[in-house]
Amino acid sequence: MHTMRHSQRIGLELAKAARAGLRAGWATGRTARPAVRAGARWYSAPGTQTVKLTAESYPQLERDTRFARVTAEDMAAFEAMLGAGQVVTGADAEGYNIDTMRKYKGQASVVLRPRTTEEVAAIMRHCHARRLAVVPQGGNTGLVGGSVPVFDEIVVSLALMNSVRAFDPVSGVLEVDAGCVLETADQYVAEHGYIFPLDLGAKGSCHIGGNVATNAGGLRLLRYGSLHGTVLGVEAVLADGTVVNGMSRLRKDNTGYDLKQLFIGSEGTLGVITGVAVLCPRRSAVVNVAFFGLESYEKVQQAFVRAKGELQEILSAFEFMDQEAVEHVGKMSGHLSPLDDKHRFYVLVETSGSNREHDEDKLQTYLEGLMENDVIADGVLAQDETQLRSLWNLREGIPESLAKSGGVYKYDVSIPLNELYQLVDDTRTHLAEQGFPTATEGSPVVNVVGYGHLGDGNLHLNVAVNRYNKAVEAALEPWVYEWIQKRSGSISAEHGVGFAKKNYLHYSKDQGMIDLMRQLKVAYDPQGILNPYKYI
Amino acid sequence: MHTMRHSQRIGLELAKAARAGLRAGWATGRTARPAVRAGARWYSAPGTQTVKLTAESYPQLERDTRFARVTAEDMAAFEAMLGAGQVVTGADAEGYNIDTMRKYKGQASVVLRPRTTEEVAAIMRHCHARRLAVVPQGGNTGLVGGSVPVFDEIVVSLALMNSVRAFDPVSGVLEVDAGCVLETADQYVAEHGYIFPLDLGAKGSCHIGGNVATNAGGLRLLRYGSLHGTVLGVEAVLADGTVVNGMSRLRKDNTGYDLKQLFIGSEGTLGVITGVAVLCPRRSAVVNVAFFGLESYEKVQQAFVRAKGELQEILSAFEFMDQEAVEHVGKMSGHLSPLDDKHRFYVLVETSGSNREHDEDKLQTYLEGLMENDVIADGVLAQDETQLRSLWNLREGIPESLAKSGGVYKYDVSIPLNELYQLVDDTRTHLAEQGFPTATEGSPVVNVVGYGHLGDGNLHLNVAVNRYNKAVEAALEPWVYEWIQKRSGSISAEHGVGFAKKNYLHYSKDQGMIDLMRQLKVAYDPQGILNPYKYI
Repeated sequence: MHTMRHSQRIGLELAKAARAGLRAGWATGRTARPAVRAGARWYSAPGTQTVKLTAESYPQLERDTRFARVTAEDMAAFEAMLGAGQVVTGADAEGYNIDTMRKYKGQASVVLRPRTTEEVAAIMRHCHARRLAVVPQGGNTGLVGGSVPVFDEIVVSLALMNSVRAFDPVSGVLEVDAGCVLETADQYVAEHGYIFPLDLGAKGSCHIGGNVATNAGGLRLLRYGSLHGTVLGVEAVLADGTVVNGMSRLRKDNTGYDLKQLFIGSEGTLGVITGVAVLCPRRSAVVNVAFFGLESYEKVQQAFVRAKGELQEILSAFEFMDQEAVEHVGKMSGHLSPLDDKHRFYVLVETSGSNREHDEDKLQTYLEGLMENDVIADGVLAQDETQLRSLWNLREGIPESLAKSGGVYKYDVSIPLNELYQLVDDTRTHLAEQGFPTATEGSPVVNVVGYGHLGDGNLHLNVAVNRYNKAVEAALEPWVYEWIQKRSGSISAEHGVGFAKKNYLHYSKDQGMIDLMRQLKVAYDPQGILNPYKYI
Repeated sequence: MHTMRHSQRIGLELAKAARAGLRAGWATGRTARPAVRAGARWYSAPGTQTVKLTAESYPQLERDTRFARVTAEDMAAFEAMLGAGQVVTGADAEGYNIDTMRKYKGQASVVLRPRTTEEVAAIMRHCHARRLAVVPQGGNTGLVGGSVPVFDEIVVSLALMNSVRAFDPVSGVLEVDAGCVLETADQYVAEHGYIFPLDLGAKGSCHIGGNVATNAGGLRLLRYGSLHGTVLGVEAVLADGTVVNGMSRLRKDNTGYDLKQLFIGSEGTLGVITGVAVLCPRRSAVVNVAFFGLESYEKVQQAFVRAKGELQEILSAFEFMDQEAVEHVGKMSGHLSPLDDKHRFYVLVETSGSNREHDEDKLQTYLEGLMENDVIADGVLAQDETQLRSLWNLREGIPESLAKSGGVYKYDVSIPLNELYQLVDDTRTHLAEQGFPTATEGSPVVNVVGYGHLGDGNLHLNVAVNRYNKAVEAALEPWVYEWIQKRSGSISAEHGVGFAKKNYLHYSKDQGMIDLMRQLKVAYDPQGILNPYKYI
C-alpha cells in the first residue's frame, strides 16, 4: 500500500512506488474479509440484552381484530400441505420474531417454511380464506422492522426456496428462487465471469427475494443502477394465492403494464415474491480501491465531481465517511484507518474495468489531479486483494461497530448533494440542545456519525446510544424528517418503510401519492393480510 | 477510414494505418447527418397515398357509445380554459389524426394544446365529468398507432409544453416538460458534459413524455439501461384531473410503492405524463464506431460475446443488419456500405469512453481478435465524426428506406439470442409458401429484412410491401406472434402495444397477468376515457 503525501512529488512515480511497497505496520494485523456463513446474523447487536415486544414498546398500537387467530385446524392444514417438518412452532419460532437490530419483537407462534411456489400459493389461499395475517420473511436483515411480525402474524419464511434456477452465460440472465442468498448467487455467476448487480453488507445472509421486495440499493448502484432497471422478471404469489408468472428473461418487453415494478420495493405488502430473474453484467477483471483523507465536505464533493468525469466508465463506488465513523469502527471493531493522520472526512473510491494498465492509468491521473489541486490531504492505494478487502471492511464494518454500543437510531436518507452532510452537523447540535450531548457523562448518546453512498446522494446518519431510549427518539423524530422534508429529500433512500417509518411517509410523499398507494394496496390485498401494521 | 482485410496482417499496424488514411472513394460523397428539425416527421412514408380511416380498415370495430360527443358547450369550455389559439379544429386537426406510418387515421375534430400541467388537469377534469375520450399525443412518432385517435377522441397534444425545467450539473438530473423534444434535451445536457440516456431514430421529433409513456428503448439501452432505471420522477395527470406529483430528483427513494413505474410504458392509458426527471450520465469524450461484415449469424453472436468481454465498460452499441437491409438502405436512401464486398451480415459496434488511447487500444485488440479467429471478413473503423455519422446514418436510415416502398409491416420482438435471426429466414419461407415471394413480379412483398439491437436481444423484422395489404397481413399475423410465443419471446420489445398489438398481448402475457393489468386500468381510469380502443 502506497502512501500519497501532499508534500511529496507524486507524478508518474505513484504507480511504480505503489506497486513496489506496502506501507509498514499497516498491511499486517488485518486479514481478508472473514467468510460469512449463509444465514448468519450479519448485523450483530449484543444478544444479551432482552428485546422488548413491539406491542409493549408501542402500547397505543392494537391488534387488528379482523384477523383470525391460528387454530388447531389451521395447524393441521399447514402440516398437511407442507409436512410437519416445515411448520415451526414454540421456542424454535423465537428467532423469526426478532429483527436484526434487536429493536422489534413479534409474537408469531407459527413459522411456515415452504419449498415451492405452489406451497406458498397453498398457504396464501388458506390464509386468505381464513383471514390470517402473514409476514413474508427473507434473510431477516432489514433495518426498518419490516420482516418480523408485530402481533401474531404467521411468518412465511422463504429460506428453503434457495436454489439457482438457471443461468444463461451468453445473456447474463440469472433466475433464482426468492430465498437464494445474495452472496451465493454472486459466487455462482462469478464462475461464469459475471457479477450480481447488487452488493451490500448483509450479502452473506440476505435473500434476493428480500432485496427485491425492499428495492435494496447498496454499494454497486452507482455503477449498475437500481433493481428497477436490472430485475427482468418477478414471480409472486398474491394475497389470495394467485401466482403471478412474471419470470421474464427478456431485456426488453413492452407488452402491457410492467407489473413486476410494483413488487420491487413493496416490502411484502402486495404479494410474496417467490422467484426473480436478474440481468447480470460482466464481472470486471480489474478492481482497484483508493482511500483518502479530506479536510472539508466541500472537498469531498469536488473529489466526486472529478471522479465522475475522470474515472467515468470504470467508477464503481464512491463511499464517504466522517472522522467520527472511522474512529468508531477502529475502536470498536479494529478496522483501522491506514492513514497516519486524522482527517475530517474519508473517501473510498473503487474502479472496476477490463484492463489493468488502462484503469491504473486513469486512477493515477485522477489521484494526482486531486493531490495537485489540494483536494485530498493523504491517501493510499490498495496493492492486493487483502488490502482491498481491508479497506472495504473498514467501510462495511461501520454499521456493526455502531450497533455494539447498545442501540442505533438509523436514518437512511437522500438529500441534494450540497446539503447532505449538513444534516449530521445539525443533528449533533440539535441533540446537545435537547440535553443529549455526544459521549458525555450521563448522556445516552454514544456517537453521531455520517457515512454513505455519496455517489447516489445517500447519507446514513447513525445515532449510537447505550440503549434504545424513548427520549432520544423523541428528540430525533420527527425533527430529522422535517429537516429532510424542507429539502425535498427522501426519509428512506434504500432501507424502506417497514414498521419504523410507516407514520413518516408524508414527509416524502404528498397526500395524493399516499392515496394512490392505498388504492393499489386495497386492489391487490383487499383484506390487508399481507404484512399488516407496516408500510402504508 | 481504414479497411481491415482478412488476408492482410493487421496487428499493431491497424491503429496507425487507421489514423493515417481514409478509404478512397468512400469518405467523400456522403455528408454528416442532416440536421433534423424539431417537430419534423422523422419517418417519412410517401405522403401522396391516401390514408384510410382506421374505422374503415377495421369495420368490425365500433365506437364506444358510453363516450359523449363534443358539443358546442364543450368547445366553449375548452376555449375558456386554454384560449382559442390552443384549440385546433377542422383541417388543422388533420395532421394529428394520422400516424407516422400513415397506416392509421382517426376522426378527432378537436385538438387541445395546453401550455401547463394545470391546463392539462383542467382538460381532464372536464372530460372526466363529461365522459369525453382523450388521446394524449407527444411527437406522434410511434409505430403501433398508439398516439392517434381511432374514432372522435379528443387529442391532447403536449407540443407546447416543451421547456427544460431544470438541470443540475453536479448530479446530472434533468427535469423537463413532457413535450420537450428528445434531441433538444440531449443538446441541452451536452453543453454541460452530459448525455441523455436514450437515443433513437426519431430523436428530432419525439417527445420525452412520449418516450417515457412508451418506454422507448433505442440505441443506448445496452449501455445506460431502460427508462425504468434512469427515470427518477414522473408528473402525470390522471383521468379525473388529479395531478400526481412524482417529480422526484432523487436517485434513491424507498418511501412507498414506486408509482412512477406504472406510467413508464403505459402509453397514456393511466394518465397524461406532463413532466419527467431523468438521471443523465456523463457524456463520453471519445466515441468510436467500427462496421464489419460477417458470413453467418453464428459469427455475429461470437462477435457480440467477445464485445461484452473485451469492450465491456466502453461498449455502447452493438447493432446488426442483414444483407437485405443494407442493400435496401443503399438503394433507396443512398447510404452505401463502405465495404467492397457483400456480406451475409453487418455489425456496427460503438464504444464510448473517457480516454482516446485506452479506447482505441481496446477496440483494436477486439477487432484483431475477431480477424485472427475468422469471425469477421472485412471491416472499417470511422476516422472522424463525418465517417462515424455516415455509419450511423446507414443503420438509422433502414426504417425510412423500407417505408419508401409504400408500407411496412413492422415486428419489433425480443427472442433468445440464439434463435433471433431464425425468425427472418422463417418469415421469408412462410410468406413464399403463402403465395407472397419477395421481390417477385405480382407479389406485393418488396423485401423482408432483419436488423436491430442485438445486444438487447431485440430484432426488428420488417416486411416492406408496395402498399398495405390485408392478405399479407393475414399471412403474417398471428403466424409471427405464434412463432415468438413458442420461444417465450416478446411480441413487442420496444414499440409498445398501441392499436396494432392490442389483440395479441396474450402471445406474451398469460391471462392472470392480463387480468391484473385490467384491474389496474379500471382502478386508475374507471370510465376508460384515456386512450381507448388500445393497449388493453
